[in-house]
Amino acid sequence: MKKNLEAINQNPKFLPEQVSTQIKELIKNNQWEAGQKLPNEFEMAEQLSVGRGTIREAVKLLVAQNVVEIRRGCGTFVCEKPGLVDDPLGLSFMADKRQLALDMCETRLMIEPQIAVLAAARAGDEDIKKLKVLSRQVEELIYQEKDYTDADIAFHEALAACTGNQVVKQLVPIIQSGIMLFINITKAALKHNTIEDHRQIIEAVAAHDPQRAEATMIRHIQQTQANIQWLIEEEKRGKEK
Amino acid sequence: MKKNLEAINQNPKFLPEQVSTQIKELIKNNQWEAGQKLPNEFEMAEQLSVGRGTIREAVKLLVAQNVVEIRRGCGTFVCEKPGLVDDPLGLSFMADKRQLALDMCETRLMIEPQIAVLAAARAGDEDIKKLKVLSRQVEELIYQEKDYTDADIAFHEALAACTGNQVVKQLVPIIQSGIMLFINITKAALKHNTIEDHRQIIEAVAAHDPQRAEATMIRHIQQTQANIQWLIEEEKRGKEK
Repeated sequence: MKKNLEAINQNPKFLPEQVSTQIKELIKNNQWEAGQKLPNEFEMAEQLSVGRGTIREAVKLLVAQNVVEIRRGCGTFVCEKPGLVDDPLGLSFMADKRQLALDMCETRLMIEPQIAVLAAARAGDEDIKKLKVLSRQVEELIYQEKDYTDADIAFHEALAACTGNQVVKQLVPIIQSGIMLFINITKAALKHNTIEDHRQIIEAVAAHDPQRAEATMIRHIQQTQANIQWLIEEEKRGKEK
Repeated sequence: MKKNLEAINQNPKFLPEQVSTQIKELIKNNQWEAGQKLPNEFEMAEQLSVGRGTIREAVKLLVAQNVVEIRRGCGTFVCEKPGLVDDPLGLSFMADKRQLALDMCETRLMIEPQIAVLAAARAGDEDIKKLKVLSRQVEELIYQEKDYTDADIAFHEALAACTGNQVVKQLVPIIQSGIMLFINITKAALKHNTIEDHRQIIEAVAAHDPQRAEATMIRHIQQTQANIQWLIEEEKRGKEK
């Protein structure tokens, strides 16, 4: 380790980038695990044969990449899901939000009905209990006319977790940005459908009925799709007038 | 803009983070577009009412997030796909690579057959030509016993682009990390199947036959899945002896 770093010490300009790569390697090789506290600046500087300033710069880069987080007064920790960023596909940078919403619907139609199938096949009693609690939270927020985005996301996350598939679980951020976009665009017009659909999805999962879970999820997403299409056409008509 | 920044000027410690957020907003709102050169440090410092050091720090954070890139001697540019990171799901941080490969197969089975369906329905003549060129490149590399990972990725990327769906196109990095993992784990044992499968996928897409495209893609991925399962069992048997 030390030798590697001494070799790259020659160009001090890129040192923070290189040290941040080294730290990522240590995390990937499980020498430092998710949730673990990193050694302090002095120790890291000595361990990696660089100055404290370089360590500080490298840590800043890793914070920007969601690999480590600084808990004020506690120290620096490896993130629970290192490297997983909020908007992994860079969707927030896309300009045409309505087309993006339709593309997102199509993508959700690819992924989520199949998540529902696997969830119905594999969900345990605890999973189903959790889904019920989360869907009740969504309902309460809707009845109280409060923002239910986060609760809705948590429901779809929990459904993905029922599959036991690590990659599918990581796909949920994509679904998340989808949900945020939908609620925003459809101005929560579909909230009462949401309540009913979530209930029926849970029923199908609890009955371990993959086909019904799939069909309900398809309807749930297609309703949003139809609504967005209607909004886009309304807007066009508005412009033509 | 200036007013916002003056308000947050009060806590200099978080200033680079805040300025990087402001720059991201400018990019998102299309004031600065993908591929565009950013103003130089002096101009940005003046425009955002902060010091040059802060701009430099903010730009470093944005480079780490793949939002801007520094072209040495030219300046700082907005990335072509801002915010899109190489490993968007943080898969490289996962420890159990073999389980990850199986989970990845399951996920590819969710997404790629449906990409094949949409590609068959929507691909134009130019798309089909491009697929043929790319698949010939894969074949040549395989015959020459060279590394064909990048060419294989380019083929699957081009297929996703046939769908015309922006989100699906962004999903390709996930498929990419999958392909890299597969070729690595199966030690390219399946390369001759790959040639035949790619050919048949192109035929189905060129014939605008979604069902055949879907079926071929399913077989293509299931073969890898079976191979990985076999490797995992072999390894277990090795340990039991």
